[in-house]
Amino acid sequence: MKILTLNFTVLFILQLFSLNIYGQSSVTIHDDKTVTFQIHALYANSVYVEGLGGVMGGNHYMNLSPEGIWEVTTPPLEAGFHYYQLVIDSVAVNFPGQPTYFGWGQETSGLEIPDDNLDFYLPNKVPHGDVSAKWYHSKVTNTIRNALVYTPPGYHSDLNLRFPVLYLQHGAGESEMAWVYQGKVNFILDNLISSGLAIPMIVVMDNGYAAKPGAENPKRPSHRDNDFDKLMLNELIPIIDRNFRTLKNKRYRAIAGLSMGGGQAIQIGFKNLDMFGSIGVLSAYPWRFDMKAIYKDYDLNEELELLWLGYGKDDRSHKNGLRFHEELKKERIDHIWYECDGGHVWQVWRKHFYDLATHLFK
Amino acid sequence: MKILTLNFTVLFILQLFSLNIYGQSSVTIHDDKTVTFQIHALYANSVYVEGLGGVMGGNHYMNLSPEGIWEVTTPPLEAGFHYYQLVIDSVAVNFPGQPTYFGWGQETSGLEIPDDNLDFYLPNKVPHGDVSAKWYHSKVTNTIRNALVYTPPGYHSDLNLRFPVLYLQHGAGESEMAWVYQGKVNFILDNLISSGLAIPMIVVMDNGYAAKPGAENPKRPSHRDNDFDKLMLNELIPIIDRNFRTLKNKRYRAIAGLSMGGGQAIQIGFKNLDMFGSIGVLSAYPWRFDMKAIYKDYDLNEELELLWLGYGKDDRSHKNGLRFHEELKKERIDHIWYECDGGHVWQVWRKHFYDLATHLFK
Repeated sequence: MKILTLNFTVLFILQLFSLNIYGQSSVTIHDDKTVTFQIHALYANSVYVEGLGGVMGGNHYMNLSPEGIWEVTTPPLEAGFHYYQLVIDSVAVNFPGQPTYFGWGQETSGLEIPDDNLDFYLPNKVPHGDVSAKWYHSKVTNTIRNALVYTPPGYHSDLNLRFPVLYLQHGAGESEMAWVYQGKVNFILDNLISSGLAIPMIVVMDNGYAAKPGAENPKRPSHRDNDFDKLMLNELIPIIDRNFRTLKNKRYRAIAGLSMGGGQAIQIGFKNLDMFGSIGVLSAYPWRFDMKAIYKDYDLNEELELLWLGYGKDDRSHKNGLRFHEELKKERIDHIWYECDGGHVWQVWRKHFYDLATHLFK
Repeated sequence: MKILTLNFTVLFILQLFSLNIYGQSSVTIHDDKTVTFQIHALYANSVYVEGLGGVMGGNHYMNLSPEGIWEVTTPPLEAGFHYYQLVIDSVAVNFPGQPTYFGWGQETSGLEIPDDNLDFYLPNKVPHGDVSAKWYHSKVTNTIRNALVYTPPGYHSDLNLRFPVLYLQHGAGESEMAWVYQGKVNFILDNLISSGLAIPMIVVMDNGYAAKPGAENPKRPSHRDNDFDKLMLNELIPIIDRNFRTLKNKRYRAIAGLSMGGGQAIQIGFKNLDMFGSIGVLSAYPWRFDMKAIYKDYDLNEELELLWLGYGKDDRSHKNGLRFHEELKKERIDHIWYECDGGHVWQVWRKHFYDLATHLFK
């Protein structure tokens, strides 16, 4: 019995100092798109994985082996990017040793399930653009902020060229990082530009939360406390136009976004038709905005080079998109209506962006 | 009793769906630099925080309140950046809802304790440079890689200017992100350049792990499987010189790094004196390298513009630094020897970098 106790103590010490810290947990994606999660957690009572499908997904309860390894293999997962977390004894945490992405209002584990038939968002062997972090002090928020800026291949070699600019926004709970790290927007554009399907362009991605000084929840302000429209118009666009070789007129300036960011593209884009010549709306939910006032005051077919709407057919926002689409048809306002399979997920937005980018600035 | 059970069930459901996911955990830094960690974990048996001092730090065991909140307040912590993790029922995880940084070989929670007397690494109201992610396909590793490149304020406005380049490497278990996100190297340089104490320069930060194709542990290859020197000389430097407005000679090219990266600066720098005119060594441990052969074959005072060594006095690597310093003195090789209080931690490397940058390229 003495020996058993000792072994147990040794195991315990080894576990604390090595097993989880140095990678004794694993996530394995199998060829059939099922995924096995394993984690050494000898002293836990309940462990499961949550997420992995749609906005919050489902729960995948893990079983404990006699060796103290909790394990579950999921059904085949949809191709694309999935947020998830591990819940240990009712505490939701990120899966140890796995990459995280800013979503769900915080750093959150993310899993990429490959699609055997699609490579348009992969880092293929084509020339790559850069993604720059541009820091600036904002008077609107009274904080330092950080926008990510994609510049296309060739931006640094021919210094006489100027480029159109797309302002591209993430969804609720995400950040300025999302379109690059979850969306792979830079690789999508690298591939499109390389094959001649998209015009070389600059893409600016800032954080859609811009809290007024003194706001109750500065990281995720309420709609009333969010001055993102003011920030974009008064600060971000001038900073980008000063620091990058942009084409500085509405013909070559677009705004687009997904979900919450799609709402912002509508709000900011339609209210500032002197600034934006193209608007892209991806999976946006309903919005409080008097489109009728816009129809009356402006000839949208005259004002806009491109109005692009994209929705996943399995997304609850799809019916809102359809309603918008029908309204635009009725008013004879030119637009592109793009549907694809899938829900409120990044794989859909990657496909959306691909199509949107082929139409922009042409 | 029925009502009590119901309340309990409701509490349980609320807990699963909201408390930890939506921020019912907290980390509070008090004015006296003590830190309170709180987390709702009603069903856990043991919860503690580990790290927070030096390489792995200590354990801070948490106590459970009747409401199911685990809590601990640490002693006052040293100013600067600290890695840490939360251990729940023996599983080491990142602290929910808190920022993470790539260290310890994976995404790891990080905490910044402010220093009331130092602001040289803060984003002060000075012009800011950009940090660009430069993607490239490496033939050495047969993978796509990503170097971060700091360009100083003004880089984009006067297109005739060319700049010196510092190649700057992170420590073991970290990544190309570390000098920016843990080290604040961009803000340190912004401040130094703004006050005229440093020459405007480009800083290139790549991942110090460059596994040969087929290596056993591609993310963290053994020394034998790591072709980082080949990658830097054959691929990285040419890519940077092609894509950025650099000064392309050794007088204006430096290499430096911390800990493992300091070893790489020694290995790559001294073996390629035709390529590098300055070498910076921060808190490097011993290395297998025949310095004597270098003394014999080269006049280092002729070859090097700057040889800079920095060590924290409380760091176990300090005695190695001292030995190197004494050897250089004996051989009458010019160098700067810089000591400061502190151990093997980022606050020391921020101070190191500050001093190093004031001497570079002058």
